[in-house]
Amino acid sequence: MADRLVVGVAGLGLIGGSFALDMQEKGHAVLGCDIDKDVCDTALELGMAHAASPDIAVLEDAAALMIAVPVRETGNILKQVAGIDMPRLKAIFDAGSTKAKVIEWADENLGDKKDLFVPCHPIAGREHSGVRAATAGLFKDRRVVVCEHDCSKEALSVARGLWQECGATIDTMEPGFHDRIFAAVSHLPHLLAYTLVGDLGNKPDKDLLLAHAASGFADFTRIASSEPSMWRDVCLTNTDNIVNEMDAYITALQKLRDTVRQNDGDSLRSFFDDARKLRDGWLHKGEKG
Amino acid sequence: MADRLVVGVAGLGLIGGSFALDMQEKGHAVLGCDIDKDVCDTALELGMAHAASPDIAVLEDAAALMIAVPVRETGNILKQVAGIDMPRLKAIFDAGSTKAKVIEWADENLGDKKDLFVPCHPIAGREHSGVRAATAGLFKDRRVVVCEHDCSKEALSVARGLWQECGATIDTMEPGFHDRIFAAVSHLPHLLAYTLVGDLGNKPDKDLLLAHAASGFADFTRIASSEPSMWRDVCLTNTDNIVNEMDAYITALQKLRDTVRQNDGDSLRSFFDDARKLRDGWLHKGEKG
Repeated sequence: MADRLVVGVAGLGLIGGSFALDMQEKGHAVLGCDIDKDVCDTALELGMAHAASPDIAVLEDAAALMIAVPVRETGNILKQVAGIDMPRLKAIFDAGSTKAKVIEWADENLGDKKDLFVPCHPIAGREHSGVRAATAGLFKDRRVVVCEHDCSKEALSVARGLWQECGATIDTMEPGFHDRIFAAVSHLPHLLAYTLVGDLGNKPDKDLLLAHAASGFADFTRIASSEPSMWRDVCLTNTDNIVNEMDAYITALQKLRDTVRQNDGDSLRSFFDDARKLRDGWLHKGEKG
Repeated sequence: MADRLVVGVAGLGLIGGSFALDMQEKGHAVLGCDIDKDVCDTALELGMAHAASPDIAVLEDAAALMIAVPVRETGNILKQVAGIDMPRLKAIFDAGSTKAKVIEWADENLGDKKDLFVPCHPIAGREHSGVRAATAGLFKDRRVVVCEHDCSKEALSVARGLWQECGATIDTMEPGFHDRIFAAVSHLPHLLAYTLVGDLGNKPDKDLLLAHAASGFADFTRIASSEPSMWRDVCLTNTDNIVNEMDAYITALQKLRDTVRQNDGDSLRSFFDDARKLRDGWLHKGEKG
């Protein structure tokens, strides 16, 4: 059994709220902070935290601090955290989908708390967002990327330990590598799904079209129901990688479009065949949570 | 209780096989035909048909004939059907994802069986294909599009009746309209998913990338595990509509790419917001099987 800690959570949405619920379940005390007073009240009502307030000072006694806000807000929170006295603090970590920018902000803003910062990214989520979407066990059997960064051994050990208590496995990665990989396998697919729905929404007969959309469309666009401000911030903090992936995708799609236009059945067949084989091989390699 | 019929099924894959299983369950006799002798043997082994053979003559006694082959094969099957004597035949219908071309082929090839033809498209499927993927109940609570076409009242009533016995609801539609709608809500998303996987498969570090793909990627690309020859034929028989949809999508994606490049946070946020609202509104409207 791990030590019982006072764990601060800044940002009580889906990710922060779910983490708070897991921490409570493991016997830690949780202090919550959210810019929205109503969210703090809801968190208390749901038994998600022992105390919760929009005032950052509520986090003072925390031994570990987890930050789960849209990526661009993280720099701001880090600045506020640097400004308060937190005598028991051993680790600060985030949950953002992009990492290079966050590390830059931590280095700039955290002052003498700089070596407590552990950049993290839990590979977990749902298309629902907000404090009421939070669920205990959200991180169970999921991976959490912990990026390599110059921090204290104790900070790293506390952050890893708490994620492991949630049932997650740890994946260590260089931040630039993280941002490039996730631009390809996560950020791009989200933008494609948003574009499909957005494109459809601009058509004059959109209601008619949607009335005939079926399960394939529902699966394909599930991720287009994700939190808009989160995805805005992902785009704003991983711009180069995302633009590269979008350019490569547009080229590939243009090529397929030309193959369709040319009625080249053999090429279409082998293109679909290869894609299916690749995906099936991937699926059979293991659990894709 | 509907009359017990002898129902022929040409093409014993996922769709034909599932239809055959439903027909059996409702007490009809099933005659199966598939180009592949092994598939016929498997169908018999699985109790899917009373008789099954690669020889089209096996269908001679059918009162209703359902054709479930990749769209481009349909014309060929219709030609063969025209050439055999089927004294009890009241209705011929297909299950293809595109309709205008199939109707053209029926008109050209079916000879004096022409007015028995009812163009159908069941909105059901799975990413698995082949005779062993067939499942009773695949069409339950799904919609089947029946396209307007000059056929006998009896043919229309037999075809509709059999789909309804499978638990499907009937949706009547003009064929050109069908092909345009499904290019937008089904064919395009399939091509986008295939392209995402195909684009990824061409990257030198594809294994590394795939190792980090998660549930969002799995959902988004589920449809890229669909049957390649089916999707080749969809592209070859609905080319104009698909190319139009691809062009509109590429334009929309290029626009989003530019918005990302310009770091225009407000536009990104409102684009994602609108897409999410549209999708959520659609989801809440009803069951999306």
